[in-house]
Amino acid sequence: MRVDELYPTDRVILREVGLRDGLQLVKTFPDTDAKRDWIQREHAAGVTHFEVGSFLPAKRFPQFADVAELTAEVAGLPGARCAALALNERGINDALAAGVDELVCVVSATEEHSQANARRSQKEAVELVGRAAALAREGDKSPVVHVGLSMSFGCSIAGPVAPGDVVRLAEECLAAGADVVALADTVGFAGPRQVTGLCRELRAAIGERPFAIHLHDTRGLGLSNASAALDEGCRILDGALGGLGGCPFAPGATGNIVFEDLVFLCETKGFATGIDIDQLIELRALLAQAMPDETLYGAVARSGPPRNIPWAA
Amino acid sequence: MRVDELYPTDRVILREVGLRDGLQLVKTFPDTDAKRDWIQREHAAGVTHFEVGSFLPAKRFPQFADVAELTAEVAGLPGARCAALALNERGINDALAAGVDELVCVVSATEEHSQANARRSQKEAVELVGRAAALAREGDKSPVVHVGLSMSFGCSIAGPVAPGDVVRLAEECLAAGADVVALADTVGFAGPRQVTGLCRELRAAIGERPFAIHLHDTRGLGLSNASAALDEGCRILDGALGGLGGCPFAPGATGNIVFEDLVFLCETKGFATGIDIDQLIELRALLAQAMPDETLYGAVARSGPPRNIPWAA
Repeated sequence: MRVDELYPTDRVILREVGLRDGLQLVKTFPDTDAKRDWIQREHAAGVTHFEVGSFLPAKRFPQFADVAELTAEVAGLPGARCAALALNERGINDALAAGVDELVCVVSATEEHSQANARRSQKEAVELVGRAAALAREGDKSPVVHVGLSMSFGCSIAGPVAPGDVVRLAEECLAAGADVVALADTVGFAGPRQVTGLCRELRAAIGERPFAIHLHDTRGLGLSNASAALDEGCRILDGALGGLGGCPFAPGATGNIVFEDLVFLCETKGFATGIDIDQLIELRALLAQAMPDETLYGAVARSGPPRNIPWAA
Repeated sequence: MRVDELYPTDRVILREVGLRDGLQLVKTFPDTDAKRDWIQREHAAGVTHFEVGSFLPAKRFPQFADVAELTAEVAGLPGARCAALALNERGINDALAAGVDELVCVVSATEEHSQANARRSQKEAVELVGRAAALAREGDKSPVVHVGLSMSFGCSIAGPVAPGDVVRLAEECLAAGADVVALADTVGFAGPRQVTGLCRELRAAIGERPFAIHLHDTRGLGLSNASAALDEGCRILDGALGGLGGCPFAPGATGNIVFEDLVFLCETKGFATGIDIDQLIELRALLAQAMPDETLYGAVARSGPPRNIPWAA
């Protein structure tokens, strides 16, 4: 799959990562039927891009045991695209065998976090990206290889991260064969000024290649950061229904930016998403039922979109 | 008081409006001692500008019965500035007698809302601003006259609002004697693109005169809108501790933007506020105790500011 098939450059693409990043740390999670329902109903609401899980040992990560089934589920939906995470060569092979459209790898922006989180150096992580890209190109499907650069805006272990280091790492990943890089604010440290700055530096380095942003709303600036990224030409943004997900490095913190609020933001900025917010709001009930211990976040769900003004610019 | 004494042009001023806009609709509210404590502790945290209530009949609005006492309380704190709302000539006289530094009036951006909310035409509302300005200049204190332009970004009754109409109304208020106008997103309809556009049109019309913005987080875009306003040169922003407050026209919706999150946003953007976020977070306990039925909002309060990066740009 060519990058511009997965990410047409004439629109904003919103990636639902709740099934992956949103379930990483939860105690209870939707069963496979509920996940299918989630995907089908969100697809009916207009969502096209799903990150459905991680290819990890099912014994240690039961919430992702059905990742291959969900990949097949998404493949059956018209226009839908399926991404999944792989953290090692075995996961990469499993993801490729399952037929993902997009293979997601992670490289930490700091050596300290790379060692602590993935037990490998940044250099080894970039080499793994290279192997993923080579393996991806061997098969018929040739999925897009997407690299999330975790801790791009500051690291919970190492502290400040220089934008130049993130850009250099992005270039290394692209040189190794990645198609798309994502700036990830893994622990919600970023502010919009920082987002503007890093997006500009990245664009100056990689030109018109698309890049993604993965934001957490840990400190309330998730949507402000998304707005800043959109202003800098970023057209691929992650979110999770109900703001699901958190991070082991930010206890008690909210998770991903709220998908339905992100849709509202995009529409007010003149980026047509084709997504029906009211249907997303209804779908939150599924999460509330399947994960009663999880707090669902979000503002549009409380108030609904404005009813008597044309809010989509 | 000259405008530049109240609003020095070399910094961002954050106005705590929780004691006024945050208490407009609540069933229970802090008693005067708790309000004094709130003001004193927020002042100790670095907050300087307080809107302490509305000069309204105490019988119908018991939550504002102590507005004159609170005005005196703020007057006793070094560097603190006290604003209060007045909605008619009697309230204006009472506010002036109490010695406010800033007299706040409201003019609706639509005729329909003006009639429904204030039972007067926009023309009459602007005339009242003129009388307020004349009365304000008669006394020794000569407070700043601040006009909130409610429904500037769309009206819950009349629907869309043309930016040109808001700007014309702002000019009429300034011509009538107002010192500062505030763009108010009373029901949380705005998105950042709209904020950018209206701020630009306003600045084109009023030049370097300071203007304020009053945002609600009804649909999650409050901080994104604040960020956009800051980018357009707005240096006076309202917020409420814990995001207190709502609006009779937006039931179930969150209220003002969360003061402590707004501080975090400003600091990440390089605007030094002089406000200690940790002290603000501690102060939320006072609200939780005094108003147990109210939901407190906010993200920084959950996670704290980042601990191992220099987040203030």
